[in-house]
Amino acid sequence: MAVGSSLSPILTLTTDFGLSDVYVGVMKGVILGIAPQARLVDLTHDIAPQNILAASLRLAAACPYFPSGTIHLVVVDPGVGSARDALVVETETCLFVAPDNGVLTAPLRQMPARRVVRLGEAACAYYRHPVSATFHGRDIFAPIAAHLAAGLPLEALDDGGPTLPPSQLILPEPLPKRTADGQPMLRLHVLYTDHFGNLITDLTPQRWAAWLEEVGGEEEGDLAAQCMVRAGKQRWRGIARTFADVAVGSPLAYWGSSGTLEIGIRNGHAARTLSLSPGDTIMLILP
Amino acid sequence: MAVGSSLSPILTLTTDFGLSDVYVGVMKGVILGIAPQARLVDLTHDIAPQNILAASLRLAAACPYFPSGTIHLVVVDPGVGSARDALVVETETCLFVAPDNGVLTAPLRQMPARRVVRLGEAACAYYRHPVSATFHGRDIFAPIAAHLAAGLPLEALDDGGPTLPPSQLILPEPLPKRTADGQPMLRLHVLYTDHFGNLITDLTPQRWAAWLEEVGGEEEGDLAAQCMVRAGKQRWRGIARTFADVAVGSPLAYWGSSGTLEIGIRNGHAARTLSLSPGDTIMLILP
Amino acid sequence: MAVGSSLSPILTLTTDFGLSDVYVGVMKGVILGIAPQARLVDLTHDIAPQNILAASLRLAAACPYFPSGTIHLVVVDPGVGSARDALVVETETCLFVAPDNGVLTAPLRQMPARRVVRLGEAACAYYRHPVSATFHGRDIFAPIAAHLAAGLPLEALDDGGPTLPPSQLILPEPLPKRTADGQPMLRLHVLYTDHFGNLITDLTPQRWAAWLEEVGGEEEGDLAAQCMVRAGKQRWRGIARTFADVAVGSPLAYWGSSGTLEIGIRNGHAARTLSLSPGDTIMLILP
Repeated sequence: MAVGSSLSPILTLTTDFGLSDVYVGVMKGVILGIAPQARLVDLTHDIAPQNILAASLRLAAACPYFPSGTIHLVVVDPGVGSARDALVVETETCLFVAPDNGVLTAPLRQMPARRVVRLGEAACAYYRHPVSATFHGRDIFAPIAAHLAAGLPLEALDDGGPTLPPSQLILPEPLPKRTADGQPMLRLHVLYTDHFGNLITDLTPQRWAAWLEEVGGEEEGDLAAQCMVRAGKQRWRGIARTFADVAVGSPLAYWGSSGTLEIGIRNGHAARTLSLSPGDTIMLILP
Repeated sequence: MAVGSSLSPILTLTTDFGLSDVYVGVMKGVILGIAPQARLVDLTHDIAPQNILAASLRLAAACPYFPSGTIHLVVVDPGVGSARDALVVETETCLFVAPDNGVLTAPLRQMPARRVVRLGEAACAYYRHPVSATFHGRDIFAPIAAHLAAGLPLEALDDGGPTLPPSQLILPEPLPKRTADGQPMLRLHVLYTDHFGNLITDLTPQRWAAWLEEVGGEEEGDLAAQCMVRAGKQRWRGIARTFADVAVGSPLAYWGSSGTLEIGIRNGHAARTLSLSPGDTIMLILP
Repeated sequence: MAVGSSLSPILTLTTDFGLSDVYVGVMKGVILGIAPQARLVDLTHDIAPQNILAASLRLAAACPYFPSGTIHLVVVDPGVGSARDALVVETETCLFVAPDNGVLTAPLRQMPARRVVRLGEAACAYYRHPVSATFHGRDIFAPIAAHLAAGLPLEALDDGGPTLPPSQLILPEPLPKRTADGQPMLRLHVLYTDHFGNLITDLTPQRWAAWLEEVGGEEEGDLAAQCMVRAGKQRWRGIARTFADVAVGSPLAYWGSSGTLEIGIRNGHAARTLSLSPGDTIMLILP
């Protein structure tokens, strides 16, 4: 992992703590006490309480845009105080510090783990003591991330021994089907809704291209234009490039900035208008 | 534009992205990859989706308090992916990086533009590629602001050629009227409501003084005390200095910290109590 | 007060300003104009408007985790523009800059004041002029905190003369009672509810141990296990160590990370489920 300069690494924070309490501030106090020069960036603290999947997907959407050497601290931890492990995972470009509850599933699909360290005896010296039973963010994860930001080599946390890979969540995936008339159909899932009400689905351009190859012989561009989208009670034809391609108030499907297909409404709120929420399905049907 | 020290400039961010997604975090990752020493300050990310006027007014309320050399990055961009231009505007004390949709109207009234650069071919080298069709904040505005923070001279972004001035919003203005009885009356507009429920209006002290001169001959102080305020279903006499000047629960008009007349309720929420919201009118009536 | 390095001190901000306006951003602009290297950390800006007690408790929960030399800027100020004083209070490890309205009561219980400076003529030179009547956060508190962060010695703000101690809030305290059957009972108060719905009470481990000594002769561990908790319409036996000790959906009492007893529901929202809110009482009853 190459750190680009003599600056202290960037340390991002992702939690389900919200911003009305001082929990995030407390973690920052602990971090700056250990790594006074750390450059802190909030990813989000507005993960729905204990929603590990939402945290994982958002993390995967953000990590690729941070410079090499960034440390991502993740505290979405419904199992705090139980026997779940705490992890440091190194990839080619960054470090993750997180509970071993599957929250790293989505980012590690994009950037495979190069080294996994389960925190144990060797790491204990770097915790904040006494370690509370309910706030490992403050007492374990923040201090470990801060020590790494301050230059502690990952080796110092490694007890040796063999390690299990990180726990995995099952991520939704598009499902190929046929309509009653035999037309090829792809069933997508709404992964989450963003602040604008746009619905982020699980269809990547790679999966889309592979499906087209499976079921059709035509040009991808033609099929993108002819494909029927069925979302909630609305249906329309074609994948658009951007919001400005459709009339105000009209729904559209477009390749979103997080790398998957999204459903939006120009100057509107798709989740509300289409009555769709995470877990719901959207159909793409070829002619 | 004099930058006061060898520190990297301050870079403020104003968006309608909210804080529950990672969009703001992603922009910060992009910025810190280009300008590792940038000092980032959030103005607000809670602009109502695509409310350009609200963003413009809040920006104007904040800019005067930042040191010379500050770069203000603004991404409230309902036209993303359409043909609207992207701008860098230099004033005597700061730089704005924003879409050309009128969002700079209010701040540029206070600090006239000294130079306007419409981003085109010359700027393209500094974008993040491929440029997405839906997130120019990440791919165009953040990288440009970051390169400027890292020392890129504005000239490097300038294609030469003549440039149009930035697009303008029509800002509400107080309207002089007469009551049925012929009394001088000034109709103000509620521009926005703050977190406390205070109603920020469009009346500046300059406009107030000019109106008094037009309609009356008396001392400004006397008229301020005698003036009748009509807001929602309530009416009262006089402009107060501060909340502590009236009883708890009473409404008051006062010169607000953003430079215009505001309507509040001591220890209360004026917008809710008076049932007033942005666009509604408030009357000042002279005796 | 020993500052640990040549870095500029950490400056935390706690307000009731919310994040939808630019008020917090404006204070940061003012601070960075005076102390360009200040490292700013938001504690929270989501204090319920003008809730001095909530601000005081949250401040006390956060301060102990910040490095020595930290400056805590607090602007929860319903009396803005009235005659209440502005204070700088020095403790062994930090500085507070706040209005004299009792907001420092809880943190100063933990860390006694070593020196109290009421801002007067000497401080006036460091204010932002003209001082508005409604935003002392911007014009008085932020500039004073920033000058201290930039190295101004506290002496420079001190007019000499004798000073009154800071104003005090009355903090709730657990009340020992007897049940109708004569069993020892301790009445706790809900101080506030956190983002997860956990109820933070006023019982510290010290107060608990003292009470047990008063009323019983048994081992503390046994009593903790046998003690009956009555919260809303639910009752259960024992104080748990952490959430994972009880079944999903079950209520529990546990020693919280802020140093007092808390009531939670595993993977649930105790405040909603138990219909309890700040000011409500919870009973601990010994067998």
